[in-house]
This record gives sequence, structure tokens and C-alpha cells, in this order.
Amino acid sequence: MTAASASQPRTRFRPPAVPQVDIGGFWGGRVDAVANSTADILYRRCVEAGMLEQIDPSHPSPGVKIPFHVSDSDEVSTVTTQMFWDSDFGKTIETAAYSLYRKPNPELEARIDEIVDMYARLQEPDGYLSSWYLRIQPGQRWTNLRDCHELYCAGHLIEGAVAYFQATGKRRLLDIMARYADNIATVFGPEEGKRKGYCGHEEIELALVKLARATGERKYMDLAKYFIDQRGQQPHYFDEEARARGVDPKDYHFKTYEYNQSHKPVREQDKVVGHAVRAMYLYSGMADIATEYDDDSLKAALERLWADLTSKRLYVTGGLGPSSDNEGFTADYDLPNETAYAETCAAVGLVFWSSRMLGMGPDARYADIMELALYNGSISGLSLDGSLFFYENPLESRGRHNRWKWHHCPCCPPNIGRMVASIGSYMYGVADDAIAVHLYGDNTARFEVAGRKVRLTQTSRYPWDGAVAIAVDADTPSRFTLHLRIPGWCRNAALSVNGEAVDLASVTRDGYAAITRDWTAGDQVRLDLEMTVERVRAHPEVRQDAGRVALMHGPLVYCLEEADNAVGLNRLQVPEQARFDCRFEPDLLGGVTTLSADVEADATADWDGALYRREPARTEAAPIKAIPYFAWDNRQPGEMLVWLRDC
Amino acid sequence: MTAASASQPRTRFRPPAVPQVDIGGFWGGRVDAVANSTADILYRRCVEAGMLEQIDPSHPSPGVKIPFHVSDSDEVSTVTTQMFWDSDFGKTIETAAYSLYRKPNPELEARIDEIVDMYARLQEPDGYLSSWYLRIQPGQRWTNLRDCHELYCAGHLIEGAVAYFQATGKRRLLDIMARYADNIATVFGPEEGKRKGYCGHEEIELALVKLARATGERKYMDLAKYFIDQRGQQPHYFDEEARARGVDPKDYHFKTYEYNQSHKPVREQDKVVGHAVRAMYLYSGMADIATEYDDDSLKAALERLWADLTSKRLYVTGGLGPSSDNEGFTADYDLPNETAYAETCAAVGLVFWSSRMLGMGPDARYADIMELALYNGSISGLSLDGSLFFYENPLESRGRHNRWKWHHCPCCPPNIGRMVASIGSYMYGVADDAIAVHLYGDNTARFEVAGRKVRLTQTSRYPWDGAVAIAVDADTPSRFTLHLRIPGWCRNAALSVNGEAVDLASVTRDGYAAITRDWTAGDQVRLDLEMTVERVRAHPEVRQDAGRVALMHGPLVYCLEEADNAVGLNRLQVPEQARFDCRFEPDLLGGVTTLSADVEADATADWDGALYRREPARTEAAPIKAIPYFAWDNRQPGEMLVWLRDC
Repeated sequence: MTAASASQPRTRFRPPAVPQVDIGGFWGGRVDAVANSTADILYRRCVEAGMLEQIDPSHPSPGVKIPFHVSDSDEVSTVTTQMFWDSDFGKTIETAAYSLYRKPNPELEARIDEIVDMYARLQEPDGYLSSWYLRIQPGQRWTNLRDCHELYCAGHLIEGAVAYFQATGKRRLLDIMARYADNIATVFGPEEGKRKGYCGHEEIELALVKLARATGERKYMDLAKYFIDQRGQQPHYFDEEARARGVDPKDYHFKTYEYNQSHKPVREQDKVVGHAVRAMYLYSGMADIATEYDDDSLKAALERLWADLTSKRLYVTGGLGPSSDNEGFTADYDLPNETAYAETCAAVGLVFWSSRMLGMGPDARYADIMELALYNGSISGLSLDGSLFFYENPLESRGRHNRWKWHHCPCCPPNIGRMVASIGSYMYGVADDAIAVHLYGDNTARFEVAGRKVRLTQTSRYPWDGAVAIAVDADTPSRFTLHLRIPGWCRNAALSVNGEAVDLASVTRDGYAAITRDWTAGDQVRLDLEMTVERVRAHPEVRQDAGRVALMHGPLVYCLEEADNAVGLNRLQVPEQARFDCRFEPDLLGGVTTLSADVEADATADWDGALYRREPARTEAAPIKAIPYFAWDNRQPGEMLVWLRDC
Repeated sequence: MTAASASQPRTRFRPPAVPQVDIGGFWGGRVDAVANSTADILYRRCVEAGMLEQIDPSHPSPGVKIPFHVSDSDEVSTVTTQMFWDSDFGKTIETAAYSLYRKPNPELEARIDEIVDMYARLQEPDGYLSSWYLRIQPGQRWTNLRDCHELYCAGHLIEGAVAYFQATGKRRLLDIMARYADNIATVFGPEEGKRKGYCGHEEIELALVKLARATGERKYMDLAKYFIDQRGQQPHYFDEEARARGVDPKDYHFKTYEYNQSHKPVREQDKVVGHAVRAMYLYSGMADIATEYDDDSLKAALERLWADLTSKRLYVTGGLGPSSDNEGFTADYDLPNETAYAETCAAVGLVFWSSRMLGMGPDARYADIMELALYNGSISGLSLDGSLFFYENPLESRGRHNRWKWHHCPCCPPNIGRMVASIGSYMYGVADDAIAVHLYGDNTARFEVAGRKVRLTQTSRYPWDGAVAIAVDADTPSRFTLHLRIPGWCRNAALSVNGEAVDLASVTRDGYAAITRDWTAGDQVRLDLEMTVERVRAHPEVRQDAGRVALMHGPLVYCLEEADNAVGLNRLQVPEQARFDCRFEPDLLGGVTTLSADVEADATADWDGALYRREPARTEAAPIKAIPYFAWDNRQPGEMLVWLRDC
């Protein structure tokens, strides 16, 4: 199916470009941390790692600086993280681009321009552009798509190019990457003589969609669709490719093609498997293609996968992928807390996927999960000051899981950086005659809807408070539909337009209130979302959470940290009747709402050196104070716990 | 202090030799499994691993068959498990020796004799005997005591030699090893010109005590004492030895000498640290020396270490050493269940240590822990049929932790084999005028006490029932004290001699009832130990066990297995009022008492695909059946849980 053949095209909601939304409030602070700190750090760390030498044609090839992986089971290692350095540059450029829009930084912009210049000089006459294969392993291009991230690197550079163009207006890198995409299209595709391959790490798909939207060139969309359609088809490309390299396809470190979601064609998939980031990037690309091509078979597969993820394998924080072995998914309901891998990149990937599910129309199921992952399991990966990072995001810690300056596989720092700095593009969806408001918080957004310029200004203390005022400003009266999300966490919501109450029940569909009218300058929308402390329980098959409760307030998941609580956190039990006091503490952790209560603690005083005894522990009163999960490990190291004992 | 200088020697209780005790009942079945299966398997696996080629001088040296360890942090690797092959032979010979006593096996005996012959031919004229250093790294003997297990291997061969002598009367290997011990004594000792070293893996100490007792040669005891006294002294031997090899002492894979308990002199140690098996073997040797030399400073250190272990770092199963990183100890109260390392060898080592603490006199504190480790965390490491092994002994499993045929570091199989096959020596302690009965169960034991031959015959269904009858048979009336342990798990005990009740309160000290009288043939002792189902709780600082309860019946810790229980085991909650039905099931797992009750389970039916919700789970009635922990994973793989949710 192509877009042209679709008889009844759906309304497509596309994200605004980052510069269309000026962010304040909660996310403004987070974006500032990235613009003031993370963006520079990313560049510096890339330089310190020696990455510039790899892409600079005026510098001799640095050779292999990061040794190839060695593990007990590998006969021959084909992978080093150095192969992905182009992707680190791509995400670093993307983060810098959004940050430059936020706050001019001529020094950083000059450095990015230098990188662009190096890539310009590195690019082959035919358009090909992988620094690894041009400089370290020349002659081996397109020989190992399964392991070596060649198209993945292209994808991240494309995303960086689009962002840098949108933020600065400079199109040199966009042109470079369009030429590389054209080169890729000469190599891969359904036509006779072209390779029937796709990347072992998905990313190129969603990047090509971005490139198509930014350039208006449908051919890039079609190439993205080809990569998605071809994935997992028989004969299996990775089998044939391995044989062409003279190795047995069975000598595969990860044993199963579930690892890279090529175990079967994507439309037949119904279980979220393998490497978590790969899965999220694939589903993101699938959602884009389902949106752009009105592809119902793809949409059906996505809905099955969504149901599988959200009913069996998602942490309450929006983190995902519990195992470090495959950096990914395991058995149903397997959600260990202390050993949770829950890679920052995976939660970022879930934001990507869920936001793209909204392309097919507003649906709070997707926006709720996007918001959950945004406010919890993803931004937990970035310190409040924007300088330190988590790779893993456990839900319980004895105090030894602490933020790192960098990681030997530095995928997460630039990923969380670019996500935060581009938060504006996740807040809204724009269709021909509609605007969807997915997220709330202080911001001003500019759109063109139904041919007219429209400005929305949100005023809110969200996520600390559920009161949201939205001022609509249109040059001339404009008829369009404003879709307003009613979050799933909210027990009671009230909506008014220009002071007139709207009956939510009658206008709400799929969790969005839809108001169609002629909007004029000065129109005022007011949404009140009741925000209460909620105790959340996990499905009984989640054995690690049995008999335990998590605390939420609005979209935020809370945790206890040793810094605020005197006793061992697993000694505490939260009684059903415990009353929580919500207080905004402006001087704590950059300003957060804390939840305090009096609970019970197992007493230790009468144990007299015993490690085991027959009598149950006595309990004693204990005060607790919970902070938002995203803000943990920003003070002295100590114990942390999300799932508290219920009593 | 030497034995000669001790003014008031204590009564010393020494273990009987294995052939002094004929075992029936529960342990008889376990010993039969070793004699019928394990002993042969151990020999075969050693052969399959190529170990014979290493010790057979008529065979060319096999060279390095198991590669040296490689890890990210090691600059230079100095260790391969192949270095320990002599220890595998030592323990295999020891297991075979006890098994041959149990049940003639001419084929196996001939194979062991061949091994002895190879060692005889391998031994250097000066007595030295390490197959690794003679055959694989000649010229490097005594250059790396810290890492290379040279004296450890000697110790295990000595233990094997003593056992083979006691069981078969053949003293060829005993003579070989005595000559090697004499050689070691020329190399190490306080005298000028001798090395001031000791082994990085303790074992030689307790082995030399056995050799001294078997040969009557005090010099071996003195050498054991030297190794213990010297450990951790400054200047540190391992520092000097590393420098002599031309390497920086700081380039030590395990970072701290706590790993091998040489961080300070042993009399100054008060915290159980480092590699668990190493620690247990050291403390075993210390206890032997404290017993033999009436060494109160050593005894004081042991009591501090004992208190530390039993109050902060012992699993309820008697397992120990929670971490795979150092195969050992971590932080106070850190006892994770699913990831418990709790190596079989460590629990075996605890049996060694606790049994040796009884050398200084009967004390149920030590015997209770010995019994706990014997019935639970150690024999869990051997399948019921004696053919499969656990290295780690977790207290919770999702069903993927299953028994192995062998292990790349095969220390555990022969260790559990020899422990089980020598169970008789742990049941009693013998002093000049006293017999201590540490363990109960069907057996007949022969002693010489106060110069007379005495035979004790126990009749009991222990551990399934607490009724114990002991018939005393002495050639002529003999005056001695019979010490009978009153287990700590027993709430009510009753004792009678020839039908006459004994007032336990007045005769019991340190948990042992002491009866001193002229014992004559036909005397009958009857001990009734009330055995009830007990709920055990862990100290509140053991965060993994918070809100949970373990079930015990007599000395046995119980667990739930998926095979007997329908629902996910963490969905279950045991109400305070649950009544347990104890039933002996002769056809289950070789005959075990099971504990059954009706409890509550969190219901899943009304979750409708939700992974999280606000309402607590409904509960529904569920029957459970628990089996003894030691018998788990002897059926189809499935979930297992020791610590059940309390409600």
C-alpha cells in the first residue's frame, strides 16, 4: 500500500519542529540544564574519546582505539563500540542544535560547523559516509549489517542534520545526509540487483521519515518503508550476509534474531522481544510508516506489541528491558527492581514510539505512557545539573548505583540530552485542521492550522499542580479542533472555554476532549486536573512487587531516598490509612513536591544480635518523605526504593 | 603458646574416623547415593577433563588445557583452574575412600591405586609434589602463593591420603604426603632462611592437623600453627612475593587481602570477609589449633568471627557468601535470595568450621549451625541420586537455576561428596572420658573411651521425627560422660535413662545434657525432641526478607516448588492462623515430610490486562505444599521460594 492508494486517508498528526515551541516551567529548567551543561559536555567527551580523529580526513586514521568485544562464547568478535562513533556525533549534533535554539553558544556552534566540515570532506563522491568503514575498515562497507550499526550511524547523522537545519537554518549537513541517503537508496531496495538488507540496529527508518518530512522528498519515506517491510523476510538477509562473509549464521553472539526483531516479518510480530532500544526504534519507524501510509496491517501489529509491552513488561517508571544480558526483554512479568537494566535509551525510545503512535490520532493510552516515560524512567538518566548520567535506571538501590561522567558505550548521554532539548515537539501534534495538546506545562507554541497562524500559550505549574490555562491567539478567527488530553492518572477533570464549562463526558474520545470551534484571539481554555497521591499496585505475577505499593502524584512516580529517611527503606510499611502531605519544596532538588506521611517500621532494638527468630518484628512509628523518582541520586549516595511494603 | 606450656589443658573432643560410624536412616540414603553414584562420577569427570595426563609421568605434559583467566581489569593473568587439579584429585580420593568403606568397589579402588602410583612416580626426590609446577610450569614453584593454590592442593591431597589410609588401611599415599609435608616444612617456618609465607587459599592448615592426628606426628600440627600465626603479619608476604616476581602488589585482581583473610593477623580479625570458602577453611584450621594448643587468643578471635557470621551474614539455610563477584561476603545483612551465590563449598566449609568449634567442648550454638548447614545449604548442592550438582544455592528461583553435570571450576562436587560420605565423623566428638552426641539419626558408632570399648546405637527417624533411642553397649562398665545435644530448634525435650526421667534443666549446659555414670551393656537412653512447624523471620535489616517468613520443621528449612504449587509463588501469603499438616510421603523425593496448609493468593482474574492499578489485589484461597529445601530441583524445572510472604 502506498499513500496514494489509500482511499480514505486518516488525519495525520505530525510533531511540531522544536523551534515552534518555547518551553518554560518544569521542562524549561530541564532544557536549560541541557543547553547550559549537557550539550557542551557531549561535545567534549566525544573529543576526549578521540572521535574527531576518526572523522577528520586531514588527520591520519586513528585505527582501532576501542578493542573489539571479547566474550567467552565468541569465536570471532566483529564489534567495537568505536563503530558507532558517527551515531554519537549525530546525537551530539542534534542535542547541540536544540540547545543552540534555546540559547546561543557561538563557540559550540563553531565546533559543530567544524564537524560538519569534516563530514563534508570525508564523504565519498558517491555519497557514502561512514567514518568507520572509510577510515578504519575500508573495503568492508555493507558486509555486516547485522552487527556493525552502519545504517544506524547514518540514521543518527540524518536526525542530527534535520535538527541542525531546523534550529540554525544551515543546510550543509542536511544536504550531505540527503546525498548519503540517496546513496543508500542505490544500494538497498526491492529492485533487482539491490541488496535486500536492513540494519541490525533499527534507527535509519525513523530518521528517513524525519528527512522526508524536512525535505519534502517522498523517496526517503519509501526507503524507510522498504526497510520495515523487508525486516525478517525469508530468505533471511543476515543468514545470507553471514555466509557471504564465510561464517556460519548460527555463530551469532545473541543466538536469536529476536535480539534485533528480525525473527519474523514485522506485521507478524506480537511480542516485544530482544534488545529494548532496538525494539523501540523499530516500532517508532513502524508507527511513522503506519501514519504516513495509512497502513492498517502495520497499525494492527503495533497495537498488539503495545498491549504486550504495557500489560507484561513495563516498569511503573516507564523504564523497560530488565536484563543486562541482552539489554532487553525477558519473560512475562519479569521486572526485577534492584537489577533492572531499564536503560535510559530504552525509555527515551519509548517516548519516541508512544509519541509516534499519536500520529494516527489523539489517544491518551499512548500519551499517558509517553508522559510516564518522560517524567520518570527517561529523565532519571540525567542529573539535575545536566552533567552526570545513568545508563541503568533501577527501582531499588543499596546506594552503590551512582551517576557516571560517561559510559564506555556512550549512547545514553546524547540520547537523553536530545530528548529533553526537543521536549516541545512531544507536547503537541498538528494536523491540517486540528491541534492535539499531549502534554501540559508552561510554554508558547506557534502553528499553522487550516492555513492560519495560531499561537497557544499554556500557563501551569504542571507537573506540581494540575491547573492549566491555555490562551489561544489566532491572527484571524480560525476553525479547528483543539484536542486536550485528559490524563489517565486524573480522577476528576474540569474544562472550560472562556469561562463556560464544557461537559467532558460528551466531548471526550480516546482520552482527549475535542473542541471544534472558530478560535479567535483572546480565547481562554481552562483545564483543571485533580492531582492526588495514588497508591499503585503491580499485577500479582510481578513477583518482585508482590505485597508492595508505589506512590504517584500526577504523572510522577515517587521514591524514598536514604537522605530523607532514617531507617532501612525495606523496614518501612505503608499502612492503608497513611495520609500523605504534599508540599512543594523550592530549595530541594531544584524545587520538587515531596510526599510525607507517618508509616510503620520494623523495629530492630529487641533483636539482641539474632539474625533469625520466630517472633515477628515489632513495629514502631516512622515518618517518611518521598521525592520524585527522576530526581534520585542527586545528593549523597544512599539507599533508594520505589516499591514500598504495603501492610 | 605450645601445648606443652598450657597449664590447664581443656578437654579436647576429636571427631571419630569415618569407619567408626555405620550410618543408616536419612544420612544412610545420602551416603549410599555418593557410594553408588557420586564417587564414580567424580573419578570419571576428572578423567574426562584430562587430569590424569597431568599427573602421569609416563604421559607427556599436556600443557595448559584450561586457558588462564582473562578479565577486563587484569593486566596479566596468573591463574587457571587447571592449577587446582591436584585438589580435585585429593577430594575425589577422599570421597572414594569413604565410599569404599561404605561399599566395596574394586574397580574404583584400582583406579585410585593407579592415581596413587602416578603421584608416587611424580614426586620429586626432595618430596615436592605439585603436578602443575612439576609438569606445566617447572621452575616456578613457591613463586605465587597468593594466587596459585600450591599449598591448597597439597592440603587436599593430604586429606585424601588420610581418608584413604583410614578407609582401606593402605598407607602409600599417606607416606607420600607425609614426605611432601616434610618438604614443605623445610621451605616454610619461623626459622632463619625459611619463607614466611602461607597459602592464598587456606586448606593446608586443617589438612596438616588431620595428618598430625593420623600419624601422631606433632610437627605437622606445629606447621599448621605456623601458617595460621603468620597469616596477615607485616611485612606482608604477598607484597614481597609479588615484588619478587617483578609485579606491583597493587595489581591484584581482588584488590584487597580481605579476599584471602590476610588483611590482618588472624587474632585481630573480627569480621567475616572475603572469599567464603577460604574464610571457612581458615577458621576451621584456627579452631583445630585453638583446640590442640588451648589457644585462648585464637578462641576469642573465633568467637568474634562466629558472632559476626551468625548475626549478620548467614542465610537461613546455612548458606553463606552472597556475591559471585568475590565468591564471598559483602555488606552487613546483605542476603539476596535469587542471586545468592551461597556456594555449596562454603556451606560445606561452615560444617567444617562449626564441627571444629566443638573440639573445644560441646556447645549447641556450634552444633545447631553445623546441623543447619548439613541438612540444608550444603546437601542442596547434590541431587538426590548423587549425580548432579549445584555450585550456587539460591533461596529463590524462577526455574532457570538447575543442577549441572559438572562445573568449569569443579570444586563443589567432590566437596559435597566427601562431606556426605564422612557424615559419621560429624555426629560425635570423643574425649578421654566423654562422648558428645552432636547429631541424631540411625547409626552405630564404636569408640574407645576411658580405655574401654564403647558402642552407641542410635535408633531414630530423625530428621522426620524427634524421637531418639540410644543403646549403650560397653564391654565392661565404663564411667564416662555422655553429652547429648538439645537442639536450639526444639521447644520441648524429654530425656530418660533406662526409663528414668532426667531433669534436663539441671544437667544441661551450653545446650548439651551431660550424663556422667558407669555405663553398662544394655543401658538405654531415650530423647524426645518435640518437632513443630516453625515460622522464622529475618532481622529487619535483611531487606530481601522483609515481610516474609521461612518455614522450618526440626533442622530442615522448607521451600515451595512449582511442581507442588499451582500459582506463582510470590502471589502467596501465609496468614498467621494457617495450620500446617506434616505428612511423611515415602514416594516423594526419596521420602520426605511435607508441610501443607491453606493460605491466600493474590488473584489475577480481575486484572483485565492491566499491569498496574490502584486497587489492591483481591485474595483467594490457595493450598500450598512445602518440601525440604535440600530436595529442590530434583523434578521438572520450576519456580522455587524459601521466604514466603507473611500477612
